[in-house]
Amino acid sequence: MIVRELDSARQTDRLVKADGWDSTRLLLASDKMGFSFHITRIQAGTSHVFHYKHHFESVYCISGEGSIEELDNGTVHEIRPGVMYALDLHDRHRLSAKSELVLACAFNPPVTGQEVHREDGSYAPVLEDA
Amino acid sequence: MIVRELDSARQTDRLVKADGWDSTRLLLASDKMGFSFHITRIQAGTSHVFHYKHHFESVYCISGEGSIEELDNGTVHEIRPGVMYALDLHDRHRLSAKSELVLACAFNPPVTGQEVHREDGSYAPVLEDA
Repeated sequence: MIVRELDSARQTDRLVKADGWDSTRLLLASDKMGFSFHITRIQAGTSHVFHYKHHFESVYCISGEGSIEELDNGTVHEIRPGVMYALDLHDRHRLSAKSELVLACAFNPPVTGQEVHREDGSYAPVLEDA
Repeated sequence: MIVRELDSARQTDRLVKADGWDSTRLLLASDKMGFSFHITRIQAGTSHVFHYKHHFESVYCISGEGSIEELDNGTVHEIRPGVMYALDLHDRHRLSAKSELVLACAFNPPVTGQEVHREDGSYAPVLEDA
């Protein structure tokens, strides 16, 4: 059994930070669960375009308020605690936080932990897979 | 994109109830994400033995306090908000809730939705896969 705790994991390289958001990877590919599991925080007042071309992602809102826009058709869904969205079509989307969003995210295939780090240590400017 | 909301899903057959706990399956195998995603509530003061022989499960505590005991070796881990456990070894375990636990659970392979219902509509008394 693996047991991990968010605040402790945030003190390790399981925490990745980018402009306006961070993500703590409580499970990665190396845990061999077949999915990865992350707690992601989106800073209040920020907006982000994501496009996971190679992953399925589900996102459950634990706290905070915001919205998600389907960029292929302009549909906007309200995000609040209890709302889940799942990118079953690898949907390109814009995630916006009115207040800080805390999100529980699962990815298939599991994230390895290297996706947002480039070889030079910077973050990729366009986050295709994070 | 799939968008679902917990309170609405609880009004449908996505909610399954058993003695002392319930689980709302926001994603099932039919959603073809490769995992299922459930919000599970464990009633305060109850204790449950689970053994998922054929699934990997991760559980993240959103709210509440309790404990998980590894039944193979007696190790007990405290459960509180921010704690995640992952049953990477199909661990037989006892989950106990001091206060109501609200848990975000991911399963691989995904649950189909039929696991806890028997053909006669009852719930299986021993929950090998739920």
